[in-house]
Amino acid sequence: MKKLIRNFLDNKYVENSIMTLIVLNLIVFILDSMVSFHNKFCDFVHIFELVSVIIFTIEYILRVFSLERFKDVFKPMMLVDFFAVAPYYISFVTVNTIFLRIFRLSRLLRILKIGRYSKALENIKRGFLDKKEELFITFSIFCVGILLSAILIYIAEHDAQPDVFTSIPKCIYFTIITVTSVGYGDISPVTLFGRTICSITAVLGIGIHGLFIGVIGAAFMHAFGKDEDATAPMQ
Amino acid sequence: MKKLIRNFLDNKYVENSIMTLIVLNLIVFILDSMVSFHNKFCDFVHIFELVSVIIFTIEYILRVFSLERFKDVFKPMMLVDFFAVAPYYISFVTVNTIFLRIFRLSRLLRILKIGRYSKALENIKRGFLDKKEELFITFSIFCVGILLSAILIYIAEHDAQPDVFTSIPKCIYFTIITVTSVGYGDISPVTLFGRTICSITAVLGIGIHGLFIGVIGAAFMHAFGKDEDATAPMQ
Amino acid sequence: MKKLIRNFLDNKYVENSIMTLIVLNLIVFILDSMVSFHNKFCDFVHIFELVSVIIFTIEYILRVFSLERFKDVFKPMMLVDFFAVAPYYISFVTVNTIFLRIFRLSRLLRILKIGRYSKALENIKRGFLDKKEELFITFSIFCVGILLSAILIYIAEHDAQPDVFTSIPKCIYFTIITVTSVGYGDISPVTLFGRTICSITAVLGIGIHGLFIGVIGAAFMHAFGKDEDATAPMQ
Amino acid sequence: MKKLIRNFLDNKYVENSIMTLIVLNLIVFILDSMVSFHNKFCDFVHIFELVSVIIFTIEYILRVFSLERFKDVFKPMMLVDFFAVAPYYISFVTVNTIFLRIFRLSRLLRILKIGRYSKALENIKRGFLDKKEELFITFSIFCVGILLSAILIYIAEHDAQPDVFTSIPKCIYFTIITVTSVGYGDISPVTLFGRTICSITAVLGIGIHGLFIGVIGAAFMHAFGKDEDATAPMQ
Repeated sequence: MKKLIRNFLDNKYVENSIMTLIVLNLIVFILDSMVSFHNKFCDFVHIFELVSVIIFTIEYILRVFSLERFKDVFKPMMLVDFFAVAPYYISFVTVNTIFLRIFRLSRLLRILKIGRYSKALENIKRGFLDKKEELFITFSIFCVGILLSAILIYIAEHDAQPDVFTSIPKCIYFTIITVTSVGYGDISPVTLFGRTICSITAVLGIGIHGLFIGVIGAAFMHAFGKDEDATAPMQ
Repeated sequence: MKKLIRNFLDNKYVENSIMTLIVLNLIVFILDSMVSFHNKFCDFVHIFELVSVIIFTIEYILRVFSLERFKDVFKPMMLVDFFAVAPYYISFVTVNTIFLRIFRLSRLLRILKIGRYSKALENIKRGFLDKKEELFITFSIFCVGILLSAILIYIAEHDAQPDVFTSIPKCIYFTIITVTSVGYGDISPVTLFGRTICSITAVLGIGIHGLFIGVIGAAFMHAFGKDEDATAPMQ
Repeated sequence: MKKLIRNFLDNKYVENSIMTLIVLNLIVFILDSMVSFHNKFCDFVHIFELVSVIIFTIEYILRVFSLERFKDVFKPMMLVDFFAVAPYYISFVTVNTIFLRIFRLSRLLRILKIGRYSKALENIKRGFLDKKEELFITFSIFCVGILLSAILIYIAEHDAQPDVFTSIPKCIYFTIITVTSVGYGDISPVTLFGRTICSITAVLGIGIHGLFIGVIGAAFMHAFGKDEDATAPMQ
Repeated sequence: MKKLIRNFLDNKYVENSIMTLIVLNLIVFILDSMVSFHNKFCDFVHIFELVSVIIFTIEYILRVFSLERFKDVFKPMMLVDFFAVAPYYISFVTVNTIFLRIFRLSRLLRILKIGRYSKALENIKRGFLDKKEELFITFSIFCVGILLSAILIYIAEHDAQPDVFTSIPKCIYFTIITVTSVGYGDISPVTLFGRTICSITAVLGIGIHGLFIGVIGAAFMHAFGKDEDATAPMQ
């Protein structure tokens, strides 16, 4: 019986239908946030939400029934399925709209279900885990560099633009926007020292970027290499 | 007879002449869009277009004649050749300028013909196809991250700047501009929460960038590695 | 005796406690720079600083005692430990606040201590040292490119915007902000020639970026490859 | 005799002195472009230039004498040495300052001499040449993408902002600034269609970036791999 349900859920057409419904939910969610769309299709959205939640609920119940052991309910993917369904029912009880809006976000986790159907996610996860120490070190250097740069920019620009570079946390925001090469330009340095720091920060940003990609790339090469060794042990 | 035509078309000088003409068409197309150039060289452009379309038409007809089977006409590269020629003749019939302008864009597809003459495009295509699952997962994570970030920024900034962060789709535009590290600065956050979200988005942007490049890089290493194994099996 | 102290310092719980204290110091340092936080928790910060400096002093003294040879005091990591502690005691003597502020920055070096506890830093260092000649060449090309671009932009834009592109050093700042793809937009070109130079600079920026990441990535692959050969010589 | 001169020029101390002088020339050149510095140290700069040009001339003459065959004078590196010296003497004849300023830029080519002293430049060059077909294809895709995006943005934004998006060439500038993720923000889209095109362009920019780095990275891995095979054939 459990095997039958599992076979039904793992059926290609069922899987694809559910994945399509997840993506449709996503599109409706985005469009509904626009005032013009919401005013026109308000009723349709309510019905669509109801139908899709019912389908997801049935799917979740079937999935729970098909589990070998009950404690598998707390597996990450099963929790994702739960949190994709539960907020809708909670919304009948609570009234606070902000609370509801935040909770509704969890519906986006449904897209993570796509991960369940793919073995490629494993490769990516392995790539990261493989070199997690190097990634941690890189991230630490990144953080220290941002702090150092933020403090130096604070010293350089606070006197020239006290209203713009008010505190170190704001300088940290500015440094992150610089080091990630976003550079909105809502805040920009005016002193020679500040500009020098910004230039160095931007160049080191490329360095950190390169370091990070180098580590990630090496990890992926390694993870994919292992993968092939495993599938072709006779090579 | 078919073989003779194919040999003529594959001749190095004929290939290079056609490629030069494609590039010349591109340059004339760009220059013609400038008002000052268009006013001066309007007549020249018309004659140049006519001549090059005639040459491309002859080339297309020869290519069709040289085909082994007729159904090869629907091969992507043959369709590109067709759409590089057809819009010009359609322009005698239709009058709508917007329609014409859009159709003329297809002329740019001519540059893709360069791909026909090169085996390197195969390597690149193979690189992408090799890890298409990982790329799809990366792209999914990218999309979910953008949506999540856009919604959080909407919650953070909508009350502070209702005229700037009007709807989630506009926040999506802003998030994409942030996460790809473009950062025009036409829109920028002002609240502490909004700035925090932007900083995290920008940092994760580098992460996604690294993930993407890591996967692509690994795929290319693999594709190029295979290539060498094939050319040097005795190694 | 020396061995006993070393064992105590290398104990997992002691290491973790010290690392936590370093991170806590960092957080307090950042928060203390905000006016609102400083006014409220001024006294707490003073006590926290005193306690943590005492603990770090004890740790430093124990570490000095546990050294095999006295000249190891001048090892980089031991100097970092010294400069993490010394500025606090100097602050009782000197009164100049700017001097103190700069010196206090060295406290951030404490985070580098994390590096002492990790072997991953070695891998990263080896990755860089492995291809240091290529990295140096890349950096030289980068610098020459920036200078060349800055001079061309100066020639192109100085006459059109004499107040914005005042001197070559300012153009260097602008070029770095462009080539690292930060692009604040506080300065932007208006002439056709200036915009062409900026476009080329931006595209070459991606090229240099790719070159740099290519070298780094190759170095890491090599360093990690060596690492595995060393740990698995029987493979 | 020729061997003696060559040995003298290849001597480590002579090489380092000349490299230091090249870098000093560079620094003086940059500083001299600042009005405040130029006014103060005008005489010193003239003397420094004279001395360094004399030294470089002597070096060039010695290098010419030490050549095996005369036609080696036209080797790229020898031409760089020539153009690093010649403009100074030409400056006594011509009076046009703009002409001089442009010619003086060639002095920056001196830094390329560093390349002569390094074998690492070979590795980098080999990395690029190795996959030059793939790089050419990538660059072609890049150019076609920019043109396509520029034309679409022109169609989208020309009616809304006729003064900003005046012609396709200006749109090309805007697209390059977007696709390289610089994003000054001096020009930015306002229509929904324009913003959509910009978002897609920015995302594809990351894709092209990844493609480019992937190809470069793979080429470097290959070039460095070959290098090791050559130095360690017994492995």
